[in-house]
Amino acid sequence: MAAEDERFRSSDSIRNARPLRHGRIERFEGPFPLEHGGSLAEVEVCFETFGELDAERSNAVLVCHAISGDSHAARHGEDDDPGWWDAVVGPGKPVDTLRHFVICPNVLGGCRGTTGPGSVDPSTGRPYGRSFPTITVGDMVRLHVQLLDRLGIAQLLAAVGGSLGGHQVLELATSFPDRVRGAAVIASSPHLTAQALAFDVVGRNAILRDPNYQASEPGEGPGPAVGLAIARMLGHVTYLSREAMMEKFGGSRLALEASPAAFERRFEVGSYLAHQGEKFVERFDANSYVTLSLAMDLFSVGETRADLVERLGRSRCDWLVVSFSSDWLFPPFQSEQIVDALLAAGRTVSSCVVESRFGHDAFLLDDDIDRYGALLRGFLDRIDAGPLPDPAEEMDAAGLDPTSIFHARRVDYDRIVELVDPGASVLDLGCGEGGLLARLAARGSRRLVGLEIDEDEVVVCARRGLPVVHSDIVSGLARFHDGEFDVVILSQTLQSVRDVDLVMTEMLRVGRRCVVSFPNLAFRANRERLASGGRAPVPAFLGPRHWYDTPDVRALSIADFEDYCTEREIRILRRVALDTTTGKLVSHDPNLDADVAVFVIAR
Amino acid sequence: MAAEDERFRSSDSIRNARPLRHGRIERFEGPFPLEHGGSLAEVEVCFETFGELDAERSNAVLVCHAISGDSHAARHGEDDDPGWWDAVVGPGKPVDTLRHFVICPNVLGGCRGTTGPGSVDPSTGRPYGRSFPTITVGDMVRLHVQLLDRLGIAQLLAAVGGSLGGHQVLELATSFPDRVRGAAVIASSPHLTAQALAFDVVGRNAILRDPNYQASEPGEGPGPAVGLAIARMLGHVTYLSREAMMEKFGGSRLALEASPAAFERRFEVGSYLAHQGEKFVERFDANSYVTLSLAMDLFSVGETRADLVERLGRSRCDWLVVSFSSDWLFPPFQSEQIVDALLAAGRTVSSCVVESRFGHDAFLLDDDIDRYGALLRGFLDRIDAGPLPDPAEEMDAAGLDPTSIFHARRVDYDRIVELVDPGASVLDLGCGEGGLLARLAARGSRRLVGLEIDEDEVVVCARRGLPVVHSDIVSGLARFHDGEFDVVILSQTLQSVRDVDLVMTEMLRVGRRCVVSFPNLAFRANRERLASGGRAPVPAFLGPRHWYDTPDVRALSIADFEDYCTEREIRILRRVALDTTTGKLVSHDPNLDADVAVFVIAR
Repeated sequence: MAAEDERFRSSDSIRNARPLRHGRIERFEGPFPLEHGGSLAEVEVCFETFGELDAERSNAVLVCHAISGDSHAARHGEDDDPGWWDAVVGPGKPVDTLRHFVICPNVLGGCRGTTGPGSVDPSTGRPYGRSFPTITVGDMVRLHVQLLDRLGIAQLLAAVGGSLGGHQVLELATSFPDRVRGAAVIASSPHLTAQALAFDVVGRNAILRDPNYQASEPGEGPGPAVGLAIARMLGHVTYLSREAMMEKFGGSRLALEASPAAFERRFEVGSYLAHQGEKFVERFDANSYVTLSLAMDLFSVGETRADLVERLGRSRCDWLVVSFSSDWLFPPFQSEQIVDALLAAGRTVSSCVVESRFGHDAFLLDDDIDRYGALLRGFLDRIDAGPLPDPAEEMDAAGLDPTSIFHARRVDYDRIVELVDPGASVLDLGCGEGGLLARLAARGSRRLVGLEIDEDEVVVCARRGLPVVHSDIVSGLARFHDGEFDVVILSQTLQSVRDVDLVMTEMLRVGRRCVVSFPNLAFRANRERLASGGRAPVPAFLGPRHWYDTPDVRALSIADFEDYCTEREIRILRRVALDTTTGKLVSHDPNLDADVAVFVIAR
Repeated sequence: MAAEDERFRSSDSIRNARPLRHGRIERFEGPFPLEHGGSLAEVEVCFETFGELDAERSNAVLVCHAISGDSHAARHGEDDDPGWWDAVVGPGKPVDTLRHFVICPNVLGGCRGTTGPGSVDPSTGRPYGRSFPTITVGDMVRLHVQLLDRLGIAQLLAAVGGSLGGHQVLELATSFPDRVRGAAVIASSPHLTAQALAFDVVGRNAILRDPNYQASEPGEGPGPAVGLAIARMLGHVTYLSREAMMEKFGGSRLALEASPAAFERRFEVGSYLAHQGEKFVERFDANSYVTLSLAMDLFSVGETRADLVERLGRSRCDWLVVSFSSDWLFPPFQSEQIVDALLAAGRTVSSCVVESRFGHDAFLLDDDIDRYGALLRGFLDRIDAGPLPDPAEEMDAAGLDPTSIFHARRVDYDRIVELVDPGASVLDLGCGEGGLLARLAARGSRRLVGLEIDEDEVVVCARRGLPVVHSDIVSGLARFHDGEFDVVILSQTLQSVRDVDLVMTEMLRVGRRCVVSFPNLAFRANRERLASGGRAPVPAFLGPRHWYDTPDVRALSIADFEDYCTEREIRILRRVALDTTTGKLVSHDPNLDADVAVFVIAR
């Protein structure tokens, strides 16, 4: 017990922690002013780099770490210590150090080499400790920019970060818009939820009310080891999903051990938390923890939608926003707020809510790397490459099956592409794997946006370098202004729409023109099937289906659609009727002789 | 600051808290053995009663409180202090004190009059304090039963409780099955999730590692006021939903006040939590908190499904299980596990997941009382009343519109009722407001269960005293054994089923016979509409609809269904074809002349 208590007496040992093995130090003289008042007489940044800067200085990627991270994002070699983001950063990894020059600085206020509470205050000759001033994410990012200046990097290819790292990316892209071409915000938010903030407050109270915190002078006496351990335990609970905890700790309600002087170890999960808390105290400084958690709490790129649109609208870069379904600390709806505001501000953004069981921690693990890694890789490729590739070539490259639905849609797509003016801005609702978008991109387009609800298809689009937002049609449409697009396309999707009136109203609001295609229920063969056969016709443009397994929820004829347009006072600008069995246009009695129709409509 | 520190120095003042104003004390001599070992030399129970016990002693309702509750469930009069469940208990309230005799005891281990850590240990003459033994929910409930014996109550009408109160209800109904006719479990669970348990561990660590806890002897010295306040703050965060916190604390990131010696008040939510923590310390004993939170953590009615089925199968009562959609501490899926096991064990259960914004706290608030109050009232009425009322009479009483869908379905219902043997056990899939169930109940039935996905309709069924489980069809069917019901009914619901094969397979597994009714797409008028009119027919048995607003997702003809049965090797035992426009049976060419069909099928 004595040994254990000894271990918990102090976190002094790490207060003056030196930079990590591969850390380089840059020192900046002169006062560094702070957003919340005051200044630091001098600042040092500890950072690591991976890969080589190219001759044009155009391949630099800034990796921003979360609250307990440091400059060691990845291994520098086989025998190196593990990095905190080995899943993402390294040779051939999504952030590929064979192609990119990666810079990862320890943040201001940290305890791994960059100036923080453990650093010596030049005015006293002793560590800052509790007297370290309040710092903000804005302060952290200004220091990142000073470092970039020192390294001679005028513009980053991209800035990438999760959690607090995502906050730094948001800050950089909006406060220094010329410094970055792509911003990837992962498992992050415009600001903490009241719930996440509340957990931080409870954790800080545990530290600040630890008598060993109150008793100690900066740099002296025992540190608040119990308070810090409790804050870390609490943090750990919030980083995991409920599902992950259930799997990890099963249902064991066994009393393992009751040791009144140390942390409770009655339950498996208690034992785990005690271990996490104790381990953290050995490597982290309590004042750094208080400083960084407060910086997170104070961070906000906007409380209202209008604020967010204004602030994010200052950015000039492309965006990738990724969240994880089971992350309840930085819940997906907060990432959606970022996406929403970026779209409203007319920025280019790709997004995905990755289905995951791993909670907030998902962005650090390699379990879901196939998804978020692919999204990140595709995003960096897109920024790097510039114009979009030719759809046919790149369909082969992506290994897409030419006999798939994608292929079957071609006849339809060709007609639709002909109906869209070259260069027009286009929103494709339910864009699937991006076949139509890729065709439009190949012809050149002022702006292309796809909405797709299926995560797999969003990932395919990301691989193809297409900017696609992971969203259902209704909430996706709500994000755009009146008449924002020249053309809105609803291709072979009307039959799966539940609220037809809402979708039609919204697409006609957002698009100056709309293109709608659907299978025709009143096609000759369908009529015969019901009238003579007494069987339900199932329009099956994309493959044979039955009444019991069709994915469609609506069936309509060309005449039904025309009736609907008349009733709702929608103008029909053009109608193209097709018989896809022969590949021919139908001009006479299309409601009888066409199996697919494409309409161009407007208000 | 001095005054504040003084206030926080000790929670001694409440260690010997006397019973509340209306509390009565019953004292039990002799050793009271404890489940986790040891015994208490004597125990006292503080309890309050509301209303009058009837001559048959058959109207008693036991109300069980949660961790920070006490015997004062409700006001005893206008000028009384508020009770913790005034929303639910009182004259004319869901637990109606004009009809029921309500008993609410403070739990064993509590600090409001019942024996707990603040009570004097007869062996030392001093309060138990930290030496109070580990107690379990089982111990609490054995003491409840001793109290019932003392009051001469052989069988309760019902036991009702939320959270830890729900755990007591589960324990009572399974360990003392003869003592209760109805068990209502609200916002509770078979056991805590690993996540909820983890929060408890962190809170207890804050108390147990508070130096004022370690330093104090039982009944002496300052108590762990800081640790208890931190535990309570953490508890509060878990009782609220994220939505509710966002509404309550908005986006304010203002620094309100920084007072290093007291709890952090920088943010609105921090100020709120500090207040909650401080208030709690004034009224609650830290050792009681540790004792009760540990009892919750140790509680389990079964870790596996098999355990749960075995344990819950010991009960003999009717059940009501209510959860709240935004409760993440006792999440709805845990209540569903209870429902699932009760159904598997053949018990009668009604259930509902109430759509709520208020998190775990919802069961204490009156915001959602229209829902959970109605469910509770209907449940108590059902147990009280015995046989179900006549559906026609009771439709009038419930104020149901005779021109509603319910009424329109009558023709169909009459045919279905004729196809079900009197007394047969019946499962009705998608039972709506319970019109068919009520008809079957009026004829007498061995067992009736309804499944309904719509919360409003579940509440209507509860008001009618029908046992309905709030569930979708697929996950509902999965809960039943092979051949568990004589008849499974899918009335006018096939057309809204997405996975037809799964539902058909499952209903044929669970029911020895199945009754399926649906509108016939190949009805003469529908054929004409497509063949001659070129418009989509929309079978509209329950009212006129269009292709764009029908709730149906499937359209099929009688012939389609017969083809399907042939393909899938399903036996058709009987077919009844109806023309509901004339109200007549159709015998010649039903696929052309009937608009509705009812099939009896089996494997």
